Amino acid sequence: MAAGRVEYHDPFGGTLGFALASRTPGLIHVSGMTGFEPDMSVPEGIEAQMRLAYRNIQGILDHYSVTLVDTVEQVVFAVGDIPAALEAFNLVSREIFGDTPPPCTLVGVTALVDPRYKVEIKVTALDRAA
Amino acid sequence: MAAGRVEYHDPFGGTLGFALASRTPGLIHVSGMTGFEPDMSVPEGIEAQMRLAYRNIQGILDHYSVTLVDTVEQVVFAVGDIPAALEAFNLVSREIFGDTPPPCTLVGVTALVDPRYKVEIKVTALDRAA
Amino acid sequence: MAAGRVEYHDPFGGTLGFALASRTPGLIHVSGMTGFEPDMSVPEGIEAQMRLAYRNIQGILDHYSVTLVDTVEQVVFAVGDIPAALEAFNLVSREIFGDTPPPCTLVGVTALVDPRYKVEIKVTALDRAA
Repeated sequence: MAAGRVEYHDPFGGTLGFALASRTPGLIHVSGMTGFEPDMSVPEGIEAQMRLAYRNIQGILDHYSVTLVDTVEQVVFAVGDIPAALEAFNLVSREIFGDTPPPCTLVGVTALVDPRYKVEIKVTALDRAA
Repeated sequence: MAAGRVEYHDPFGGTLGFALASRTPGLIHVSGMTGFEPDMSVPEGIEAQMRLAYRNIQGILDHYSVTLVDTVEQVVFAVGDIPAALEAFNLVSREIFGDTPPPCTLVGVTALVDPRYKVEIKVTALDRAA
Repeated sequence: MAAGRVEYHDPFGGTLGFALASRTPGLIHVSGMTGFEPDMSVPEGIEAQMRLAYRNIQGILDHYSVTLVDTVEQVVFAVGDIPAALEAFNLVSREIFGDTPPPCTLVGVTALVDPRYKVEIKVTALDRAA
């Protein structure tokens, strides 16, 4: 990374309209991720979508050789039934982070980028290489 | 803090599903906080909830020996009547920050983690010890 | 900037209730910006509002001699028709960022600070002077 420049991780070369992540000295900011499968299909349940969202985030963090354990903060944007979103989050968060979860802010939103999605997770991680 | 690791402030040992805050070199990220009393009761009005949310955030920042004056940015998520939320914010923000308020983004959301809450505030602060 | 202090950019001296931006070592956090003209009028369409929001953000970044090219991450809060917001974003993002867009999270919210606004954009930028 050149001094004083943001480095973007954008394997799609700008065609998505956003990079998947950026790296600045010390921090990696990942775009809000949703729960799609590698074939772009989307499971109906929010719990399955959360697992996939974290898997997709980890796939992006792989680019920087960091893991979800390096999460600095996360914001969970949920559509629809918030008690169900919380229940799913409590379950999936424990699977992903065990007894050392990162900070989290969970709020209900009116819509995400595609009506199939019930949750989108935005993660900021520590760049351990910095 | 070990080099290259995120330090979490989680007095509940993971049982909440999220840490109250994280520290990375230079920044403290606090989980979105709501306006509950020490006995976990929640006042009805948004103005009272905002004061308590800031008090709860300050309680977390105490762990790092920093104060709300060290706020780098804040996002205010409000449910319901947004003009009323703005009016309350203008009042409480002046009480808390005086003439030197930090940046703020205030948006309306569909729901917070508990239907009693009308506002949740997410603060990022500077770790002056860094 | 004194060591260990947040520096606020607040040409209104606290009267708005929030600063336009803050600078900490390495990062500039800009308050969520909406699409108003210099005379404070607001165009009706979301596409025009987005262009103005980015122009207003750039006006704030000017204070730090950085540009939107230094964007680390952005969150786009949209009211109303999300497919229309996405279509506008894809167009305006390309105008602003070309083939190297930053990360982005776009979510639908119930309301912004003024009912005329259809979009608010929150940008974090790299402080190249750090």
